[in-house]
Amino acid sequence: MQEIPLRVIGVVRSPFPTPLEAPRQGEFTDKESRLEIHPEYAAALDGLERHARILVVYWAHGADRSRLASAMGEGVFAGRSPHRPNPILITEVALGAREGMTLRVTGLDAVDGSPLLDLKPALAEWEGPGGFIGNWDASLRF
Amino acid sequence: MQEIPLRVIGVVRSPFPTPLEAPRQGEFTDKESRLEIHPEYAAALDGLERHARILVVYWAHGADRSRLASAMGEGVFAGRSPHRPNPILITEVALGAREGMTLRVTGLDAVDGSPLLDLKPALAEWEGPGGFIGNWDASLRF
Repeated sequence: MQEIPLRVIGVVRSPFPTPLEAPRQGEFTDKESRLEIHPEYAAALDGLERHARILVVYWAHGADRSRLASAMGEGVFAGRSPHRPNPILITEVALGAREGMTLRVTGLDAVDGSPLLDLKPALAEWEGPGGFIGNWDASLRF
Repeated sequence: MQEIPLRVIGVVRSPFPTPLEAPRQGEFTDKESRLEIHPEYAAALDGLERHARILVVYWAHGADRSRLASAMGEGVFAGRSPHRPNPILITEVALGAREGMTLRVTGLDAVDGSPLLDLKPALAEWEGPGGFIGNWDASLRF
């Protein structure tokens, strides 16, 4: 099996100790979480605070990576469960204050202790309406 | 340094041999690419073909993972360059035919040979307008 080593850039500190307490999506919470970025990535953060909304890419460390299908037989690639071979989750959040290497964010669905993989500014022209998000009415073929 | 092993689930076959030929974003191409999924993930694909649009999560294998800031001094987490500690890229594409373990897709910006990490259906209520994508007019603080 081919493997690629991910580097953990920090850790999520959230009010959700287990997946049971975490919201199904970030939009369902207005609670604040903290992103604690490891000091060696200080230079990588410069300028992020100019953005009001960011994408948080994190690892669902409690996920079952061996699961290929749901109990109903649906493949994991056909659904959005965190249980999948590479449980990489992406949530758009509101960025609050930066305090040194800690970022305060609102709208994150991550369980406390989730390893952080990446941060990116959310850009209107790429993520927003009129950007790369297409015609949603035609999205499902059912 | 903490590391997490990613499992490569397949490979992209695209008309873009190097980053110079690849479009800056998938929306800028109507060329077709093929996603060749490794046979051990067959069960994970079941049901994906019901979706017209999917999210392709792949690895930018040509990226410089050591880069922390641009030549202008902007941190890599404040930008969208593929050169970052974990070059995980996510593109929404149109899903065409499935032929065995190969998926034909349109709108992918990946360089030929990019390792595939995950596939997810793009869901209107999560990615579309009125979903978790927020108020874009207020997105930038400049």
